[in-house]
Amino acid sequence: MKKGVTFCEVGEQFSDFLLIKSSTRGVASNGKPFLTLMLQDKSGEIEAKLWDTGAEEEKTYHAENIVKVLGEVTNYRGRQQLKIKKIRPATPQDGVSVTDFLETAPQSKDELLDEITSYIFDMKNPHLQRITRHLVKKHQQAFLEYPAATKNHHEFVSGLAYHVVHMLRLAKAISGIYPSLNTDLLYSGVILHDLGKTTELSGPVSTTYTVEGNLLGHISLMANEIAQTALELDIQAEEVTLLQHLVLSHHSKGEWGSPKPPMLREAEILHYIDNIDARMNIMDRALERTKPGEFTERLFPMENRKFYKPSTENES
Amino acid sequence: MKKGVTFCEVGEQFSDFLLIKSSTRGVASNGKPFLTLMLQDKSGEIEAKLWDTGAEEEKTYHAENIVKVLGEVTNYRGRQQLKIKKIRPATPQDGVSVTDFLETAPQSKDELLDEITSYIFDMKNPHLQRITRHLVKKHQQAFLEYPAATKNHHEFVSGLAYHVVHMLRLAKAISGIYPSLNTDLLYSGVILHDLGKTTELSGPVSTTYTVEGNLLGHISLMANEIAQTALELDIQAEEVTLLQHLVLSHHSKGEWGSPKPPMLREAEILHYIDNIDARMNIMDRALERTKPGEFTERLFPMENRKFYKPSTENES
Amino acid sequence: MKKGVTFCEVGEQFSDFLLIKSSTRGVASNGKPFLTLMLQDKSGEIEAKLWDTGAEEEKTYHAENIVKVLGEVTNYRGRQQLKIKKIRPATPQDGVSVTDFLETAPQSKDELLDEITSYIFDMKNPHLQRITRHLVKKHQQAFLEYPAATKNHHEFVSGLAYHVVHMLRLAKAISGIYPSLNTDLLYSGVILHDLGKTTELSGPVSTTYTVEGNLLGHISLMANEIAQTALELDIQAEEVTLLQHLVLSHHSKGEWGSPKPPMLREAEILHYIDNIDARMNIMDRALERTKPGEFTERLFPMENRKFYKPSTENES
Amino acid sequence: MKKGVTFCEVGEQFSDFLLIKSSTRGVASNGKPFLTLMLQDKSGEIEAKLWDTGAEEEKTYHAENIVKVLGEVTNYRGRQQLKIKKIRPATPQDGVSVTDFLETAPQSKDELLDEITSYIFDMKNPHLQRITRHLVKKHQQAFLEYPAATKNHHEFVSGLAYHVVHMLRLAKAISGIYPSLNTDLLYSGVILHDLGKTTELSGPVSTTYTVEGNLLGHISLMANEIAQTALELDIQAEEVTLLQHLVLSHHSKGEWGSPKPPMLREAEILHYIDNIDARMNIMDRALERTKPGEFTERLFPMENRKFYKPSTENES
Amino acid sequence: MKKGVTFCEVGEQFSDFLLIKSSTRGVASNGKPFLTLMLQDKSGEIEAKLWDTGAEEEKTYHAENIVKVLGEVTNYRGRQQLKIKKIRPATPQDGVSVTDFLETAPQSKDELLDEITSYIFDMKNPHLQRITRHLVKKHQQAFLEYPAATKNHHEFVSGLAYHVVHMLRLAKAISGIYPSLNTDLLYSGVILHDLGKTTELSGPVSTTYTVEGNLLGHISLMANEIAQTALELDIQAEEVTLLQHLVLSHHSKGEWGSPKPPMLREAEILHYIDNIDARMNIMDRALERTKPGEFTERLFPMENRKFYKPSTENES
Amino acid sequence: MKKGVTFCEVGEQFSDFLLIKSSTRGVASNGKPFLTLMLQDKSGEIEAKLWDTGAEEEKTYHAENIVKVLGEVTNYRGRQQLKIKKIRPATPQDGVSVTDFLETAPQSKDELLDEITSYIFDMKNPHLQRITRHLVKKHQQAFLEYPAATKNHHEFVSGLAYHVVHMLRLAKAISGIYPSLNTDLLYSGVILHDLGKTTELSGPVSTTYTVEGNLLGHISLMANEIAQTALELDIQAEEVTLLQHLVLSHHSKGEWGSPKPPMLREAEILHYIDNIDARMNIMDRALERTKPGEFTERLFPMENRKFYKPSTENES
Repeated sequence: MKKGVTFCEVGEQFSDFLLIKSSTRGVASNGKPFLTLMLQDKSGEIEAKLWDTGAEEEKTYHAENIVKVLGEVTNYRGRQQLKIKKIRPATPQDGVSVTDFLETAPQSKDELLDEITSYIFDMKNPHLQRITRHLVKKHQQAFLEYPAATKNHHEFVSGLAYHVVHMLRLAKAISGIYPSLNTDLLYSGVILHDLGKTTELSGPVSTTYTVEGNLLGHISLMANEIAQTALELDIQAEEVTLLQHLVLSHHSKGEWGSPKPPMLREAEILHYIDNIDARMNIMDRALERTKPGEFTERLFPMENRKFYKPSTENES
Repeated sequence: MKKGVTFCEVGEQFSDFLLIKSSTRGVASNGKPFLTLMLQDKSGEIEAKLWDTGAEEEKTYHAENIVKVLGEVTNYRGRQQLKIKKIRPATPQDGVSVTDFLETAPQSKDELLDEITSYIFDMKNPHLQRITRHLVKKHQQAFLEYPAATKNHHEFVSGLAYHVVHMLRLAKAISGIYPSLNTDLLYSGVILHDLGKTTELSGPVSTTYTVEGNLLGHISLMANEIAQTALELDIQAEEVTLLQHLVLSHHSKGEWGSPKPPMLREAEILHYIDNIDARMNIMDRALERTKPGEFTERLFPMENRKFYKPSTENES
Repeated sequence: MKKGVTFCEVGEQFSDFLLIKSSTRGVASNGKPFLTLMLQDKSGEIEAKLWDTGAEEEKTYHAENIVKVLGEVTNYRGRQQLKIKKIRPATPQDGVSVTDFLETAPQSKDELLDEITSYIFDMKNPHLQRITRHLVKKHQQAFLEYPAATKNHHEFVSGLAYHVVHMLRLAKAISGIYPSLNTDLLYSGVILHDLGKTTELSGPVSTTYTVEGNLLGHISLMANEIAQTALELDIQAEEVTLLQHLVLSHHSKGEWGSPKPPMLREAEILHYIDNIDARMNIMDRALERTKPGEFTERLFPMENRKFYKPSTENES
Repeated sequence: MKKGVTFCEVGEQFSDFLLIKSSTRGVASNGKPFLTLMLQDKSGEIEAKLWDTGAEEEKTYHAENIVKVLGEVTNYRGRQQLKIKKIRPATPQDGVSVTDFLETAPQSKDELLDEITSYIFDMKNPHLQRITRHLVKKHQQAFLEYPAATKNHHEFVSGLAYHVVHMLRLAKAISGIYPSLNTDLLYSGVILHDLGKTTELSGPVSTTYTVEGNLLGHISLMANEIAQTALELDIQAEEVTLLQHLVLSHHSKGEWGSPKPPMLREAEILHYIDNIDARMNIMDRALERTKPGEFTERLFPMENRKFYKPSTENES
Repeated sequence: MKKGVTFCEVGEQFSDFLLIKSSTRGVASNGKPFLTLMLQDKSGEIEAKLWDTGAEEEKTYHAENIVKVLGEVTNYRGRQQLKIKKIRPATPQDGVSVTDFLETAPQSKDELLDEITSYIFDMKNPHLQRITRHLVKKHQQAFLEYPAATKNHHEFVSGLAYHVVHMLRLAKAISGIYPSLNTDLLYSGVILHDLGKTTELSGPVSTTYTVEGNLLGHISLMANEIAQTALELDIQAEEVTLLQHLVLSHHSKGEWGSPKPPMLREAEILHYIDNIDARMNIMDRALERTKPGEFTERLFPMENRKFYKPSTENES
Repeated sequence: MKKGVTFCEVGEQFSDFLLIKSSTRGVASNGKPFLTLMLQDKSGEIEAKLWDTGAEEEKTYHAENIVKVLGEVTNYRGRQQLKIKKIRPATPQDGVSVTDFLETAPQSKDELLDEITSYIFDMKNPHLQRITRHLVKKHQQAFLEYPAATKNHHEFVSGLAYHVVHMLRLAKAISGIYPSLNTDLLYSGVILHDLGKTTELSGPVSTTYTVEGNLLGHISLMANEIAQTALELDIQAEEVTLLQHLVLSHHSKGEWGSPKPPMLREAEILHYIDNIDARMNIMDRALERTKPGEFTERLFPMENRKFYKPSTENES
């Protein structure tokens, strides 16, 4: 099995298909136009330059097209760059498609949906169960395809559902140790906490923020939808307010985007579960690319810390 | 005209009716029970002690009753206290009622409603006008009676509407200087920005927070209601999102309770207008009780500063 | 079974034995001396005044003595106080002892030790296992008796070991979900993270800070002991540094007392586990005393938030 | 009428006169020298490269000279750049002068002075009026020519006076709503608050900070001048202290450069007026270049937020 | 020699003259008036209550009178209080005067002036020397009598000059180690840095802030006076700006009251010298009252830390 | 005597030997490889490019080799760069060695050791003296060679010992003014406070952090070593704890890396002495390169301030 482009070392030859994520025209210091390509496969992305390009090249090598590349990995100002020796657009005969180049969750959409559904099935509180089921159904396709964020953690296809599934497992494990926790409320909060991202973000590929996402945010959007769902299902119960509170408070602090801090035991734990899963994802993926006895790069969402991979740890 | 109890100086005699705001039973250091009364009239409130009280006194002098008091204003640990010499419950013959003792806005509810209505009438954008009119109508009675806050500023009967009216005047004056401002959006935002307080707070007297108010807050509650009103009135337009954004962002920063910072020109100005009116209210009321050439007490919501009343200023 | 003194409501009669936690002499406003007693049983503590006391009373009613009290629970400035009607020192015939009045962990010392030992037994890394076993053995008695803190969370007899046991359960549950975690290192870090408290604190009763505790702190003290233990056991391996790092970084940030932030996956998770268990303990104990549909008091170590007990939750 | 260079889109041809703001010599990767020119007209500035330049070009194309340029607007690393095709120095026959290329306030110096003078004329307090008139006269030329800042807001010729005029309008409008404000003190504070910038900054073109400006700052410099003016005019009155306080406190907080926070009602409002006008200037100029339905770039002085231009708003 | 009242331990008898610093009337829980006296001698102050007082006592025992007291030191809510057994006003025959009870610097005014003068004499830069000499002369009496602050450090008679003298010694010692420091500028800055306090504060006894002190502050006041002195002495040199900068920046940060941070080597060191002397004064005075092996109380101006007195240190 | 490369002005010719600090391969925009060399002598470092390089050049011009260079100093994006005209590797005949190119302290290692030893000799407390002597001896070679930091201050050969010597002089001078300071404890703390850097850092050249340095830090490492030394020397005395406290607290605040804030008079002063010497070193070295009447660049470790060199100051 071929390793991805980001696993190549400096000096190594690379020859394979890649997806053009973005293509930007520039003018070189000799006055001639060139293209800066951001190329990606499932392992991540790498920059490349295409020199002396004209109108035709700009058309051929634009974003979301697939190319076959032969090149050498070099180091430019501390970041890896691919020095292109040969390049051609992919043809139908090559039998490659866009999804071959997008990082996706290690579990399939069906598996993710099955696991989430089984947690909903286990709920005993009918109000929470009905609201949760209704909203998951309403947004099901996006829920299973969207990333959990545009960067930092779970920024891959199906990242959102994969994040939720691991949080549900944490919720179950922790509730087993602290029986005072209301699992129905907690599971419901876990499943819905980031579901507003299906409105906040543009989609699973080249993800950006929508206008609504920018101006209102996934937290307020989902609190809204819960209230509306309760109206539609004619549910008038304190649980509606509690569930809205879990969504509103799951970032824990005002400066992190929550208009209310957690004021329910389950809201406090939801925030912790969310953090643990996001942080494990960030650390695992950074340490995977690090050699034993070395440190990762500084990880911005981990308060800009770098992490050490013990020298006795097996390379993964 | 009689000045209120909080305008009395230490050593002065006071003889008038007062409303009992709260009454708490204590046990004195000699082992005998006593009552701590918080007494109020329109000028504000003062503490008093009633010694050697029994079950009967506790019943007679409980909260929301009116009493006739003869006493002397003394100073206890830097705060004024009323030393009671004589006290009796008011009788129907006294012809006094609870509202005589509550501070209220200087404008009547009708005047406030008229002024707000004329701003709605002037709006040219039908979406904003319909949503605003619908929500004002829905909450009209509470809107005209509630305070704008439980403490700090406009904490009196009709304080919310009085605050809104002054903000509307500021909005009009400022828009006259900066024609790029969209007055329809700004007026609409001013009128609705705190309307969620009618759900967040318990009412105009002895105001506390409701459970919904604590767990969701007036900001999220009103953003919700705007979305729902748009659904009911079948309005699908960007203005709905813009108006929700004005409400969500009017506290400006996450640490002050807004899940989103202002990202519209009108949202930024709404935040400034809200501050100016709240701060003028706080400063005016504190300086009114201060002699020329002296400083007010430290004002907590003004970053704990004290303010100076110039020695050439006429006492108000 | 009798409920404790802190579960009495205002106005209720109380008649039982209590331990004097502290006794302070004062002079009343009538010039006569009196004693302020802090009385406790397993449910918590309550203040009481003893009026017109002389040298004899001061001797009889000093700290760590047990008394039989008849009194009434009253409210003084918002806090409960016990109004004493009768009081007498306990006699040997009463058959009560100091430990009857101290709050203790719900598990016995033997159970706690067994559970901790089984985790040590499961370790596969001989270096971590030997260091951990050696240090647990060295401090065994204090480890099983000390509280985890002087206030805020697990501030009861055996609180430290009880806290560690629950953290171990969390560590096991979370490692089951994220197989990249090194359980030997994580268990070892959990067991030792607060063991320096047996030097930092004075003991299980009337706990205060020692001079060493104040000047060096439990974090540096234990990092020290790990290094020394490694020397004694002649262990030269990177694991010694890793384990020291887990202890040093478990408060996560400099402003919370850690000289280094977590730079190991296990260090990051240790910090989260520590927080979850401390916070569950604080919330559970506060909500236990709160009625459904009401809020707890503001909880200082929970960023001064108050927590809501849903109205549908059964009273515990 | 020709639109400015910064309004050109990528790919567009540009042919017009431009002012060289700065010219820096570099050595290209082929070892040959080149010039980096910063070119400007009233609409703003754009970078351009001049390749293979020698001593003669360096002399011809230095700062503050005017050139005629033919070129194409390109995109270089996300910023616009002008690719020069032809360039020549302007000649006297071209009839262009430096001021044609500097952004200036929309009102003339005479209009600005007239409006400011009328506010001074309206003052009733002779002390404030005399001090204000004296200082405006003393610094009149610079006051009418200087920008209000080197960047962020009103950074154009006559920006200072233009800023003051709009603040005076705000002061008048707000005082009309809150009659407790002392307009004489407020107008005086508005007019003098930034007048120290005429000493702090170097002048209207290529504005930098003077040594005095760096070491003392415009706030302390003007507080000084007020005291000195009072001495010269033999005014001994509390108003001198009040006016100095308005100047000292107008940045509101220590961390923003004010040695004292506002402690006068007028000082508090001065700070708000200053902010509103600066922020409207920043937002208006950024939104002017933004298309409906899009966001501005992140605006550093607006806490790095981006602002949305509603899709229904007419392009300005 | 008699030790002061604050050195008495709880339970000890005290019999001596004391100065009444303040006297406040209260009403006891039995309804009778009483006086709260704050009594002081050179060692510090202690509270006392005088029960059942009438108009006559209020007149006899008012602030700034001297009394002979017999009493016992007791503990009230953790603070020492003097339980008065006998009290009488001092008579002329007693031969005591107010200054006997005020804490004063350990050096006489003449000694302090001599030492400061010798530093001025040593200056080689005539501009700095003349400005410094002129301002010291102008404020000489207040300079030698005022405290350096109303609380926290050097809050005693002649505290300001005593603080300056020790800072001059530090300046000399440090300049001996770092020859790049300009001693003339540094000495001048040390001598003038707090001289504005003679305008900011009301005087050496019962020190409060003046209106000018509150609204302008000692930093701006003295920067002003330096500029004015330079005008009067017809000095036009950069040193005037440098010296003003030292005064303006000596609190180092905006949030601590400096409108500019240090931008001169000497300004940076002035700030450090100021801190070292203030902190040594606070620590020395707190540790003087602490027994070996114990901690001081928490010291607010030392970031609320408590300090340890080693058990091997001799009691002072 | 030849001045160093960093003292050359733009346009100046440079011809001398330089040490290659680092050498990085890049690919130019024309597709050909080149080397980016960082060249240094005792005055500092400068970047240079070597175009059209092949495998041979990469071998010849790698890090830690010495070269003879003829070139011209140019300006590239605001930073100086050396444009190479001729370059050749140094040969044994050139008689140059690596240490000729490293910045070193102005005092020799022997002088530094002598001065430190004399302070140890003067100590009267045998415990502190023995521990200090033992640890200095143990780490003597590294102590005399290491820098005090990797950047910011004293980042040169013998920087650590040079820093300590100046701090000892400050300690002596300040103790002369405040006799309450315990000089033995203070000297001991000064000498050991940063000694852990000999474990934390990799060495005097191309200094980086070791794994232990990253995970534990010099503060915890040295606190550890003090405890161990006391064990080895069989010293059981409070001084061991006090000395550990000085080391632990010398960064003063948690956010700056100290697990405990200073709680001893000597610990507080140690922190101030450390700061004064570091800051004098930074300011002196920056001002040395600045012309009179100009400002330094912004200095990051001085809170990003720039410093002014008065126009009357002689250039150094």
